[in-house]
Amino acid sequence: MKEECGVVGVLMHDADAQTKPASLQIYYALYALQHRGQESTGITVKCGKTVKSIKGMGLVPEVYAKEDLLKLKGNIGVGHVRYSTTGDSKIENCQPLMVNYKSGNVAIAHNGNLVNGHELRDELESEGRIFITNSDTEVIAHLLVKELLKHDPVQSIKAVMSRLKGSYSLALMIDDRLFAARDPLGFKPLCIGEISGGYVVASESVAIDTLNGKLTRDVKPGEVVEITDNGFESHQMFNEKNAAHCVFEYIYFARPDSIIDGQLVYKVREKIGRELAREHPVEADMVSPVPDSGITSAIGYSEESGIDYREGLMKNRYIGRTFILPGQAMRETAVRLKMNTISENLKDRKVILIDDSIVRGTTSRRIIEMVRNAGAKEIHARIGSPAIIAPCYLGIDMASRDELIAAKKPVEMVKDAIIADSLGYLSIDGLVKAIGIDRSELCLGCLTEIYPVEIPGEKCHRKQLKLNEFKNEN
Amino acid sequence: MKEECGVVGVLMHDADAQTKPASLQIYYALYALQHRGQESTGITVKCGKTVKSIKGMGLVPEVYAKEDLLKLKGNIGVGHVRYSTTGDSKIENCQPLMVNYKSGNVAIAHNGNLVNGHELRDELESEGRIFITNSDTEVIAHLLVKELLKHDPVQSIKAVMSRLKGSYSLALMIDDRLFAARDPLGFKPLCIGEISGGYVVASESVAIDTLNGKLTRDVKPGEVVEITDNGFESHQMFNEKNAAHCVFEYIYFARPDSIIDGQLVYKVREKIGRELAREHPVEADMVSPVPDSGITSAIGYSEESGIDYREGLMKNRYIGRTFILPGQAMRETAVRLKMNTISENLKDRKVILIDDSIVRGTTSRRIIEMVRNAGAKEIHARIGSPAIIAPCYLGIDMASRDELIAAKKPVEMVKDAIIADSLGYLSIDGLVKAIGIDRSELCLGCLTEIYPVEIPGEKCHRKQLKLNEFKNEN
Amino acid sequence: MKEECGVVGVLMHDADAQTKPASLQIYYALYALQHRGQESTGITVKCGKTVKSIKGMGLVPEVYAKEDLLKLKGNIGVGHVRYSTTGDSKIENCQPLMVNYKSGNVAIAHNGNLVNGHELRDELESEGRIFITNSDTEVIAHLLVKELLKHDPVQSIKAVMSRLKGSYSLALMIDDRLFAARDPLGFKPLCIGEISGGYVVASESVAIDTLNGKLTRDVKPGEVVEITDNGFESHQMFNEKNAAHCVFEYIYFARPDSIIDGQLVYKVREKIGRELAREHPVEADMVSPVPDSGITSAIGYSEESGIDYREGLMKNRYIGRTFILPGQAMRETAVRLKMNTISENLKDRKVILIDDSIVRGTTSRRIIEMVRNAGAKEIHARIGSPAIIAPCYLGIDMASRDELIAAKKPVEMVKDAIIADSLGYLSIDGLVKAIGIDRSELCLGCLTEIYPVEIPGEKCHRKQLKLNEFKNEN
Amino acid sequence: MKEECGVVGVLMHDADAQTKPASLQIYYALYALQHRGQESTGITVKCGKTVKSIKGMGLVPEVYAKEDLLKLKGNIGVGHVRYSTTGDSKIENCQPLMVNYKSGNVAIAHNGNLVNGHELRDELESEGRIFITNSDTEVIAHLLVKELLKHDPVQSIKAVMSRLKGSYSLALMIDDRLFAARDPLGFKPLCIGEISGGYVVASESVAIDTLNGKLTRDVKPGEVVEITDNGFESHQMFNEKNAAHCVFEYIYFARPDSIIDGQLVYKVREKIGRELAREHPVEADMVSPVPDSGITSAIGYSEESGIDYREGLMKNRYIGRTFILPGQAMRETAVRLKMNTISENLKDRKVILIDDSIVRGTTSRRIIEMVRNAGAKEIHARIGSPAIIAPCYLGIDMASRDELIAAKKPVEMVKDAIIADSLGYLSIDGLVKAIGIDRSELCLGCLTEIYPVEIPGEKCHRKQLKLNEFKNEN
Repeated sequence: MKEECGVVGVLMHDADAQTKPASLQIYYALYALQHRGQESTGITVKCGKTVKSIKGMGLVPEVYAKEDLLKLKGNIGVGHVRYSTTGDSKIENCQPLMVNYKSGNVAIAHNGNLVNGHELRDELESEGRIFITNSDTEVIAHLLVKELLKHDPVQSIKAVMSRLKGSYSLALMIDDRLFAARDPLGFKPLCIGEISGGYVVASESVAIDTLNGKLTRDVKPGEVVEITDNGFESHQMFNEKNAAHCVFEYIYFARPDSIIDGQLVYKVREKIGRELAREHPVEADMVSPVPDSGITSAIGYSEESGIDYREGLMKNRYIGRTFILPGQAMRETAVRLKMNTISENLKDRKVILIDDSIVRGTTSRRIIEMVRNAGAKEIHARIGSPAIIAPCYLGIDMASRDELIAAKKPVEMVKDAIIADSLGYLSIDGLVKAIGIDRSELCLGCLTEIYPVEIPGEKCHRKQLKLNEFKNEN
Repeated sequence: MKEECGVVGVLMHDADAQTKPASLQIYYALYALQHRGQESTGITVKCGKTVKSIKGMGLVPEVYAKEDLLKLKGNIGVGHVRYSTTGDSKIENCQPLMVNYKSGNVAIAHNGNLVNGHELRDELESEGRIFITNSDTEVIAHLLVKELLKHDPVQSIKAVMSRLKGSYSLALMIDDRLFAARDPLGFKPLCIGEISGGYVVASESVAIDTLNGKLTRDVKPGEVVEITDNGFESHQMFNEKNAAHCVFEYIYFARPDSIIDGQLVYKVREKIGRELAREHPVEADMVSPVPDSGITSAIGYSEESGIDYREGLMKNRYIGRTFILPGQAMRETAVRLKMNTISENLKDRKVILIDDSIVRGTTSRRIIEMVRNAGAKEIHARIGSPAIIAPCYLGIDMASRDELIAAKKPVEMVKDAIIADSLGYLSIDGLVKAIGIDRSELCLGCLTEIYPVEIPGEKCHRKQLKLNEFKNEN
Repeated sequence: MKEECGVVGVLMHDADAQTKPASLQIYYALYALQHRGQESTGITVKCGKTVKSIKGMGLVPEVYAKEDLLKLKGNIGVGHVRYSTTGDSKIENCQPLMVNYKSGNVAIAHNGNLVNGHELRDELESEGRIFITNSDTEVIAHLLVKELLKHDPVQSIKAVMSRLKGSYSLALMIDDRLFAARDPLGFKPLCIGEISGGYVVASESVAIDTLNGKLTRDVKPGEVVEITDNGFESHQMFNEKNAAHCVFEYIYFARPDSIIDGQLVYKVREKIGRELAREHPVEADMVSPVPDSGITSAIGYSEESGIDYREGLMKNRYIGRTFILPGQAMRETAVRLKMNTISENLKDRKVILIDDSIVRGTTSRRIIEMVRNAGAKEIHARIGSPAIIAPCYLGIDMASRDELIAAKKPVEMVKDAIIADSLGYLSIDGLVKAIGIDRSELCLGCLTEIYPVEIPGEKCHRKQLKLNEFKNEN
Repeated sequence: MKEECGVVGVLMHDADAQTKPASLQIYYALYALQHRGQESTGITVKCGKTVKSIKGMGLVPEVYAKEDLLKLKGNIGVGHVRYSTTGDSKIENCQPLMVNYKSGNVAIAHNGNLVNGHELRDELESEGRIFITNSDTEVIAHLLVKELLKHDPVQSIKAVMSRLKGSYSLALMIDDRLFAARDPLGFKPLCIGEISGGYVVASESVAIDTLNGKLTRDVKPGEVVEITDNGFESHQMFNEKNAAHCVFEYIYFARPDSIIDGQLVYKVREKIGRELAREHPVEADMVSPVPDSGITSAIGYSEESGIDYREGLMKNRYIGRTFILPGQAMRETAVRLKMNTISENLKDRKVILIDDSIVRGTTSRRIIEMVRNAGAKEIHARIGSPAIIAPCYLGIDMASRDELIAAKKPVEMVKDAIIADSLGYLSIDGLVKAIGIDRSELCLGCLTEIYPVEIPGEKCHRKQLKLNEFKNEN
């Protein structure tokens, strides 16, 4: 099941937990991570001997009632926000997943996608095991509990990691202990920080900011960090030669005010704009973003090119769950509800329109149509990412290969499809330069069709992780 | 976890399922079983290849929205209503429990209580298994799936039954097949019937009545019935010498219009009233029930004694979730909200007050106080069951031994505690006679302190089920 | 607009209002009156200088959240439960109606139906007045406020009463003062009582019982009672020669444990049963009620006739808002959901079936069919009211004349229509005797087609109220 | 009662109303106006003979369920979004206000604030009239209905307008006719436009854009426009020498993509930024907005000054109804939840921080503290409006005079209070220049303490509207 998610874990010193219980810190942190998943959310905390959860479908403010939240006392816990791309939006799939086992209980908050999830599930089912949810998280739970019968938590997590292929950033509560774990290639972000009265692990550093805390550092690929009363205890479990950080976190998924693997996302997007300006200059009257995702790159483009930055599209800040009746007129209204043109800014202008990416091309076409109807003379689409030519198997909801317009059409034809006067994609080199991380440390699968892990039917540019080796280590 | 529940399973012929999908039949049947559990409810149906569920906290009309329910197409399914006595009322515990396993999926609706539930859970956890809910149902699911890897469903159910000790009436959907199973002692009721277009299994025959169906018969103790397109296929798995039907289903739990193990509950309660009149006659002006549970017995008492039946207490039909502020005056209001006296009927009268049972004695005391305040000259409490002196381990929410007033006090002192002028409990012989089933076929544990299954710390009047023998059979 | 309603007003002594605010007492009282209206409810209280309300669609437990209710401090207030028969169920129509006027504010809770409501509304609209609700209550508010500019509250209420034709029982809060008012013919019930710490006015005495209070007396027809810190201050405004108490309050609308105009409703229904037995004896095996409305009369019939009382129909206590799909089978299920037969009690029996009334005849027919299908040999319908041959204009939701089966068919044909073996209606004399109030003091309009007030197109047996006389009094 | 609101009215040609009912168009238009009021919303439409409404507390997507909305057929209707600043947020105050009167009904959606609202209410109450809501809208309804008894709708609206003092932009449905009316000084915006199949009146042109329509023009001050099947019929009722358009609509209240009284709000804000740069230049490393309100002005400042535009603060797009526990740490979290600093962009920089206005100064102080903690070397606050020194009586929620920091302190002290290194307010001249409308046509009351209408205790720079003259006209 494809999921985009945000995870968080908090440990408070006992004294501080009285006035600032872990649950409340997690609640605020989840607000900061809401952009990573709006479908469901959950908080699980350890209250003395018992473990308590609140979970529900919807946004953070919809799921947590003050009265309920204040009942979740306790000093450690984990939280989750989730968006499922498979439509499998049932309450059972809502995380953290809390399971009871022989010696206690485990709560898991997971962001990522296992490429061998089905394989592992089959293996576990062959042992007569049962699955209540559809998520990879339950697979991890089964594997972890099997190890916990034999090993201590740290060794157990290591053993589980040796079985998993794909992306995973985990916040884990095992009995009274809190752990952060990141896959050996470091696909999805995960960082740790210090807050007044305790410590936090979170998908993005904005969660730490929100708690008035201080980002300590990213969790390293292949690292397990135990969060204790005395701070962070590191266990470097795997040492892959290269990481494979997801570039789309920088391009559009993460919040611009987050620092991921040392790079401020805002800065990356600004540089993307500058690179774009260098790679695809064009004479025009104004640079305008598709809000909100194109804003920072448009500022960068404007600065580099010297062409005025001016907003030509305005986003409606209040759009929630709207329903639209069938029919062409209504579909147009649907677009207008979300985004409106400022005709006076666009009329008779040559416009450079900056967007973060093109997936299917349909949204781009609708927006460009709208801009043209508003009177723009020329529309030059500049895209803050290279053409997406292959699907993501590691946790970003892209689309299948045959839905990806750039997988089927050359740039010139994409340009025609979206009715732009010109179209310029950022080059892969430009992207890598903007991110500021060596190309060998990035996952560029969706842009190159070559993936850092073996995926059946796809090319892989690295030696496969040797699972047997790991197994022998146990 | 102590639970009182109702279960139902429906199979419709394919042609009939178009207009009368299984989900809808289950929905109506659950209405008829609502008295067996008001805390949560769920329906799980097989829709082609997929299995879909609706579950939620609350009453049947609160949980199922028409729109959602109509999306549950398909011809077989199971349903559940649940009341938990342990306050563990989280959505995860809501049944049916649907699990995926190697070859498909299993949905289980369970009514009963395993006395070896913890033991089995420990055993399964020792194998590294995980538990997401607190219920015995998940224990059953684990055991069943282990067997399903080796055996066909029928043999698998048998093998599981050989491991379970305690009470269980199950509606089971294993892949495309529907089963009913009842524990070897037949503690909790379970019956099968025919409806227009299909077949049904349910906790009580009223569910079949509600579907305009015809009760075929009770599921026999130790029997597994497969419900197929051609009707019922019986597999008598265990042949205990004697059954152990729960007497409290007759005394107060089941609906009076249900027929359980061949006995109409209404008839039993009427006879209880007649027996009471014979055992504890008293000169009085009127016989009056504590509504609703005492009504039928009061009618029986009146007929046998020739003393006028007259209502002295009126129940408020509209009481839902009320909140009451602390304080004595408010507690009295709480009682008055539920039940009011008809003073004119009670004033200066000698009243025989019929109730079904006395558990803690506090409610009885409050009611008798109210009746006395309304002007009754004498109040003679007559109770439609023997004194409850021990807890139930098999699925009825009684109270712990030290909460049971009759476990601590002789009848004379109970009389004083509830401020009655006289108190008469039905004798065990009287109860058995009223039920019309041989004493050896009934569970009288809470009345005798001797149980039909081994319970640690309690006496058992039967040879223990030899688990090893069963094991060898596999 | 046709409405059935319940009203309540509470005044607490200042000291007692701290721990037992008026709002809470009203809340509990409304629970006791819930049978009088389940569509919407409201509470309005005076909290110091301001007036606060909680209103909503639904049942009492659904509308009032503890947190909100506890915010309604203050020592006087009024409350309302409402059922509209016109489908005009919008929140604006929810009572009490609270209006601001020149010198303060007025909150009105109204039970009844004005026969000149439209006339008065026209008159007020001709003055340029506006109406926000559809209810007669707003008409009363306009009239009252006009008078309050000129007169004190007591005189104002009198002046308003002189304009109103029809039924009305009012609980009124005018600024800081609380009043009860009943129309000159006393159609709808209204009574006053004392509770610990204060006083109460309510539609039925069960509301007073629920507050552990003591019924003082009924409000007299044409009386206005001011409820003050010192008790009740009576103002007898009108002295009609005869009252016109609604007989259907006794027959089915009121709770059996209420005392209305001096008569215990339970007693009346029991006597109705005895009268029926005398008027329409028949040889049979059992007397059985249609629950719940026929229960008390069936007990009376059984006692008078000596024929055994036995329940043949069982009501489902948990039926809420159910939805039923179209189709014959489903309609049958709809009936079964609400009521089930106890076949064993009915099979091969001659059954006397007691119901309170027959309106359209369709429900009776369905029930009798069900009883017959359960095996009854003969079914003798005995009805606890005379044939309803005309509509009610005074506040009971009957049906229009052409829907009333008895308005169109003689008894013999009604018998055939409901497929009974025999049918006996109570005579008007029998009803009057059972109620125990002189025939001249009762409204029998729906049974005789002759009404106690002038209604366009209907006969009236009394001299019309001379409105001009009243007007001159002002 | 102080209210900020948005209004809309739609008339569809009968043929088009079948597929595009007025209700649906109003629903989408209200989405576009959601920023004008988030507390409650309502839609009232004429469906044949009847008028139907949906109203509720909350946002547009929360109040309107698809199923309910689709039941509102019909070709004309009005809608409203509302935010009350007085905390009087009860459902009764939710608009449109629909009232019945002698010849039909009137639905009113109102944006504005009457300065003689209390006076008029007193006058109406002295006539014995009653008020159910607290809003000025009910005052207007009373006045209108009085006139409608004597005059046609157009004359009636004129007569009412002659009585009203203050701001009002109205969408009115009188029986089958739809009207727009704007006060003689044109305080609040109101415009009309054409859509496919019909016509629309709305508070802002973005509502017309959202319906894929075309802005026709603003409703003129003192104009009443009837919207008919044939388009717009203008009635210029009053010809004040000068208008008094609210400047705060441009400064912060309206959406930037709206055109109000001929001026594109985006353009005005951009020019505000340019003016600010000219009036208050300062050497700095970057210009940064307080999002979202300062964004456009910051872009303008950047362009004019040549200093780089860079985001230093990031707004959380997902913040809804959050609860915050008491305590200093938690208050900081509350700010962080809404807005986060991008430290890397701010560190060691001299920052020009652009905000739209300063009201109490507390928010500005918190934001500047946050920016300073993020490492900014200097912070130069530049405010896109002059100092607010007096309250607004015309419909913008400012604060009372003693809450306004600039009413109590000179600029230098405000600078200290918000801990800025320098502070520059836009001059009134600069603002007027940016807006592009002559100063004599603007309301600058809150900036000058001199108001365009007489307000008790405040100065007025114009001859009072002579109400008597208007009265004679009737």
